[in-house]
Amino acid sequence: MNVEAARSVRDEVVEMAEGSLRASRELVQLSTRKKNNILESMADAVDAGAQRILDANGLDMDAGRAAGLTDAMLDRLLLTSDRIEGMSDAIRAIAALKDPVGEELSNWMRPNGLEIVKTRVPIGVIGIIYESRPNVTADAAALCLKTSNAVILRGGKEAIHSNRAIAALLVEGGTEKGLPEGAVQLIPFTDREAIRELVKLEGLVDLIIPRGGEGLIRAVTEHARVPVLKHYNGICHIFVDESADLEMAVNIVENAKCQRPGVCNAAETVLVHAGVAADFLPLLSDRLSAARVELRGDEAVAAILPSVVPATEEDWRTEYLDLILAVRVVESVESAVCHINTYGSGHSDAIISASETSQRVFSRDVDSATVYINASTRFTDGSQFGMGAEMGISTDKLHARGPVGLDELTTYKYVINGKGQIRE
Amino acid sequence: MNVEAARSVRDEVVEMAEGSLRASRELVQLSTRKKNNILESMADAVDAGAQRILDANGLDMDAGRAAGLTDAMLDRLLLTSDRIEGMSDAIRAIAALKDPVGEELSNWMRPNGLEIVKTRVPIGVIGIIYESRPNVTADAAALCLKTSNAVILRGGKEAIHSNRAIAALLVEGGTEKGLPEGAVQLIPFTDREAIRELVKLEGLVDLIIPRGGEGLIRAVTEHARVPVLKHYNGICHIFVDESADLEMAVNIVENAKCQRPGVCNAAETVLVHAGVAADFLPLLSDRLSAARVELRGDEAVAAILPSVVPATEEDWRTEYLDLILAVRVVESVESAVCHINTYGSGHSDAIISASETSQRVFSRDVDSATVYINASTRFTDGSQFGMGAEMGISTDKLHARGPVGLDELTTYKYVINGKGQIRE
Repeated sequence: MNVEAARSVRDEVVEMAEGSLRASRELVQLSTRKKNNILESMADAVDAGAQRILDANGLDMDAGRAAGLTDAMLDRLLLTSDRIEGMSDAIRAIAALKDPVGEELSNWMRPNGLEIVKTRVPIGVIGIIYESRPNVTADAAALCLKTSNAVILRGGKEAIHSNRAIAALLVEGGTEKGLPEGAVQLIPFTDREAIRELVKLEGLVDLIIPRGGEGLIRAVTEHARVPVLKHYNGICHIFVDESADLEMAVNIVENAKCQRPGVCNAAETVLVHAGVAADFLPLLSDRLSAARVELRGDEAVAAILPSVVPATEEDWRTEYLDLILAVRVVESVESAVCHINTYGSGHSDAIISASETSQRVFSRDVDSATVYINASTRFTDGSQFGMGAEMGISTDKLHARGPVGLDELTTYKYVINGKGQIRE
Repeated sequence: MNVEAARSVRDEVVEMAEGSLRASRELVQLSTRKKNNILESMADAVDAGAQRILDANGLDMDAGRAAGLTDAMLDRLLLTSDRIEGMSDAIRAIAALKDPVGEELSNWMRPNGLEIVKTRVPIGVIGIIYESRPNVTADAAALCLKTSNAVILRGGKEAIHSNRAIAALLVEGGTEKGLPEGAVQLIPFTDREAIRELVKLEGLVDLIIPRGGEGLIRAVTEHARVPVLKHYNGICHIFVDESADLEMAVNIVENAKCQRPGVCNAAETVLVHAGVAADFLPLLSDRLSAARVELRGDEAVAAILPSVVPATEEDWRTEYLDLILAVRVVESVESAVCHINTYGSGHSDAIISASETSQRVFSRDVDSATVYINASTRFTDGSQFGMGAEMGISTDKLHARGPVGLDELTTYKYVINGKGQIRE
């Protein structure tokens, strides 16, 4: 590594972050109406500049093909007129959401007459580090602006031209309606050093949200001094209890595995109570073989479904993101909980059960962001939760867990109203 | 550094943390009644074992004197019968507080009939790293147990004998009433390596709370992979606005500076609006010189109070923790906000003002955990807030800000009740 170049990347990132900090002081003063006007103007600019985005995206697609990106990766990178319209629609949808900033979270009076008001406020400066999908540029900028946070965007190198075009349009459109300078910034170069420097800027950057594969997230966490809100992966489980409605269980497993296998809230492992294994497993096998799902089972499963692929310890730890499902027979709800807390990722886990006791034990003892009783894990999603829009899902336990919507992009402060009180 | 020794410290810390994780799975199952019985039994054990604690503390005091600790440090280390009674009283007070675990934070129904319940749950495994005062051992253990968190305690080396004695009594007393093994553990050695290893245990430890001087906290943050909730220092400000009741302002400044100068919520800097400087500064000088406070002022202050010590840039950044007060004249509430956001530590800042506009601007724009309107900064404290007990104050913005009480030692999860819903 060239020391002079590294120093210069650091200088540029620090300068950007200082601009973000200044912008964050202005953002906190903007009214909801003003923020919404800025968002509408950003959306208009994206619509009006669609051709600029398409041209830039063409450069990224050419480079992506030359670099041998897979079809799935190219598809995530690709922008079309429809997808650009989707971006501006999403910005307008965020404008239409309730502004959480300034909300009174609680309020109490002390015996000495001090009134303590816990108030929702922006976090300050948020850095978003993400991979290929260029629509994240618009989503993240809009979510941060709505919550009066300044944002530093650092997209993947495959999407650099698209991201630059989108960010430029957002800033142009926003500035017309009073977007503070520095409120939305994209790191314009793709040097990895920029990430390493950004995540160290304690005092300038308040929060880093990495979105992408486990490798990216581990690299961010490795170097971070700034708090990180993240999600490594989604190893989601469905436990079919002894008292389960087996038809419901099959429907839910099929949905959670097959409806969209490549996403984090898809199921990867099914745990079946020994008391219903002989009834349930053939039903499951029939339904899922029709959907071309490969089952990998432990010995107890193989005893009932001889054709199953043998599961290894590694299977319990794997996020397949594919039409493969690990299956294990367990002796009790407690064993299911133990398996989930050992191998799971704290994302989304479901119990299918008619027993209130089992439901209570499972929902209390499974240490995950979202625990489902008789429903598919696929509902872990900001829009499915009714949050309108989301920055992603957190499997961290601090600050925010589960879908990260507008509220989760805020913190609070205490405003205390007195009449001259001093401490005795 | 001896590699073999380091490996062994790591092994020991990992083994402790694995025990904590197992204990945390049991703690989540304990009823409030059971936790309170355990706490009462811990308090009884501390009372019954007071002599053991005093004997151990004697060893620490001897070592402290031999090591040349200052009188203030020796006083913080010293335990007496009264102080031990204070510890057991604090444990009983925590037993009497409301249990936050299991509280329903919110609850809503989606159009598809899914009921989403946001529920308060323990964080899991919390590591507390603290300096000399041995009562933290009891406080932290009790606060964590009440919130169903497993705790790993790592006290300062000066207090190692006292801490070992207190922790042993807590575990003995707690175990009689069913304290899970590993729920309360003290790292029994004082090797610094233990801290470095502990703060890296992502996946085993969920949160680190360091309590102590800035050096300790920086060392922890430097090495941490686990989220850290912390407070570096308290550079608290009082802004005396043009419309301030000057008698109220003098009373509040005197209280905030003098009532207990060595604590983090004491005031360090007073900002005076230029419009009232000529009236206010002589009043301030008279009152504070009677209290033997040294004033350090900028040129505008010196023009009114010629005897003032000239303030340097360094003064604005200093937490004196002593009878010294920096004083600066500012032109407006906006200038006051700018000074506070530049030099402050985000802890506690006050405005003394009769103007609702100034109050609103100040409370909105000062980026601190607690903002006071016409009251002393000395109220930033869990018991003054009515939280009953606290683990400390956070100047971080993520997860918890301001006093860290029972609620702040919890996180949440979503429990979602369905009737077989699958995603379309």
